[in-house]
Amino acid sequence: MGTGEPVRRTVWLDSADPESVRVIDQCLLPFEYAEVSIRTAEGMAAAIRDMVVRGAGCIGASAGYGMYLAALEARYMSGADGAAHLERAGAALEASRPTAVNLSWAVQRQLGELAGITAGDERVTRAREIAESIADEDVASCAAIGQYGLGLIEEIYARTSRPVNVMTHCNAGWLAFVSHGTATAPMYAAHDAGIPVHVWVSETRPRNQGARLTAWELGEHGVPHTLIVDNAAGHLMQHGKVDLIIVGSDRTTINGDVANKIGTYMKAVAAADNDIPFYAALPSSTFDPSSRDGLADIPIEERDPREVTNATAFHDGHQIEPRVAAPGTGAINYGFDVTPARLVAGIISERGICRASEESILSLYPEFVGGVISR
Amino acid sequence: MGTGEPVRRTVWLDSADPESVRVIDQCLLPFEYAEVSIRTAEGMAAAIRDMVVRGAGCIGASAGYGMYLAALEARYMSGADGAAHLERAGAALEASRPTAVNLSWAVQRQLGELAGITAGDERVTRAREIAESIADEDVASCAAIGQYGLGLIEEIYARTSRPVNVMTHCNAGWLAFVSHGTATAPMYAAHDAGIPVHVWVSETRPRNQGARLTAWELGEHGVPHTLIVDNAAGHLMQHGKVDLIIVGSDRTTINGDVANKIGTYMKAVAAADNDIPFYAALPSSTFDPSSRDGLADIPIEERDPREVTNATAFHDGHQIEPRVAAPGTGAINYGFDVTPARLVAGIISERGICRASEESILSLYPEFVGGVISR
Repeated sequence: MGTGEPVRRTVWLDSADPESVRVIDQCLLPFEYAEVSIRTAEGMAAAIRDMVVRGAGCIGASAGYGMYLAALEARYMSGADGAAHLERAGAALEASRPTAVNLSWAVQRQLGELAGITAGDERVTRAREIAESIADEDVASCAAIGQYGLGLIEEIYARTSRPVNVMTHCNAGWLAFVSHGTATAPMYAAHDAGIPVHVWVSETRPRNQGARLTAWELGEHGVPHTLIVDNAAGHLMQHGKVDLIIVGSDRTTINGDVANKIGTYMKAVAAADNDIPFYAALPSSTFDPSSRDGLADIPIEERDPREVTNATAFHDGHQIEPRVAAPGTGAINYGFDVTPARLVAGIISERGICRASEESILSLYPEFVGGVISR
Repeated sequence: MGTGEPVRRTVWLDSADPESVRVIDQCLLPFEYAEVSIRTAEGMAAAIRDMVVRGAGCIGASAGYGMYLAALEARYMSGADGAAHLERAGAALEASRPTAVNLSWAVQRQLGELAGITAGDERVTRAREIAESIADEDVASCAAIGQYGLGLIEEIYARTSRPVNVMTHCNAGWLAFVSHGTATAPMYAAHDAGIPVHVWVSETRPRNQGARLTAWELGEHGVPHTLIVDNAAGHLMQHGKVDLIIVGSDRTTINGDVANKIGTYMKAVAAADNDIPFYAALPSSTFDPSSRDGLADIPIEERDPREVTNATAFHDGHQIEPRVAAPGTGAINYGFDVTPARLVAGIISERGICRASEESILSLYPEFVGGVISR
């Protein structure tokens, strides 16, 4: 495979049966690895809804493949019936997760490009091409992020001539995309380029995506890594054990405020206290050109307090969610926080690295000038 | 009970049977509350070793009571045999936990004061008085910390006229002492004085002492509190939801560097970023007058990585330690970190509040001048 791309993707066409889509069942990870074949658009919508596939890039590509499965189902339908079937399948895919912009983007792209095609076979061929394009573009975007981020790691290695210690938080890894990931892409690129990297993986309570997913995928790819509790990040920074921090982002304002998994801000502020560069890696679709104030503008999801009072764990061959907190104690569960641009050394995007400032972001993304999204 | 003292202590003489010591079995908390009667010095050493009782102040007082039980055992022995029995019991108590200075201090105080007494009954009476004194002094010291810290909370309440939001980390609560605790003492004092306080309890991975012990004891005392994951502390601070942070300390250098549970430093640095006062509450026995550089001088314990890869939880009526991390992933587990004095607004001790500076600490504790411990 290409630079840093893992041995498999999160979603792909089955080479033995190209009318079937294969995905990694992410519900079972990291305690069990299994692939699932999906053969209907409805099945793909269910897989997205049940989080068999998850992560912005991954579910976007999955929805693209779901529309290909819908085109297969519509192959022998009349023109009008076929078009209606595609519309219904697209609506079901879009509704499978409430807030994921990537779902809608992939479905609408398929519907738009298939609109003028009435021949069933031609529609299948075209839907397949589009689905493959959506996946390949995700891979290319993450690969570019990896190459730009690689430069940061190379520079540290050239200066220190010892393994480069990179810290990350949560999972902005290939499991959340089609391949490479965003925050992880530079780590894979460096590892594949023969630069010794070691990754500090913070467990990322409450849902432990670091301990479960990032640790698993780094292990699968052979990248040296060590798990820590979120609390230990600052201590490592104080003692010179962290050279670079790279996280993902769920939304980044046009001035460079970075919304990401809860706990990201504390890592950024500790990094600043220890003069450690803190970067966010993200595709351009993550930018929100309509906001210049992340702390004021970005709504922070409050999730089920049970994620805080309980843990997801593996016991006697099963995943369980046992209680870890004192009985009767109430909890609050914020999903994300916002790291102000002043704490962000730079943003690694598929077009290069820019500073976390409106001027620098707009120099790479002139289409965001004026706060209007013109993608 | 007196100001802020909970309805019971962690260790006390059984009023129905004064030749028996009662303790709360802290191994079972928070999922089960049980008291245990201890009738022999050997039994007390086992209770300390097995962490039925834990926390510096609590095990110091327990060792004091253990020596009283030893004096009961030696009541009818000859002078020399009795003295030898006390020596043996003291050695066993001191050896019950490896590094706890409070154990040795309590045992040596008993041995020193009992040395000249040969009559068995007189020795029992005196050992009981000393044990009660050690416990009462711990209570008085924590109560004084509570009263000094109360002033900080009162000042905020006078200024804001709304519930005061105090954040803490780990358990520096009454369970770790005989009563009141250190970091919790001002919270109990404020609650008992009718000032509305609400406590943010960070769960304190990996051992979850916040979620298990602090949440439990605040709940028992009726103090409003909310559990959060450690990652959420910074977000709350950014959004004005924290007025004051009070933590305990395991060791504080003479210049005011505060060693405490892992994760404390990240809270302190986020507090500084948001202009929130960050205090450490500690008895004078916590000061290390021989060090002026906590980051360089204080050794940080590395504990079993299993605490990071696994969680302690309650499932089907039992405490279990299921795995939470990806199989095969390695972890590192630092027990403590050091918060530099520059991030500490002040130290709340039993003699008052001082700044985290050598000059200010020595003004309250002149016996530490010259770096010699002259307690």
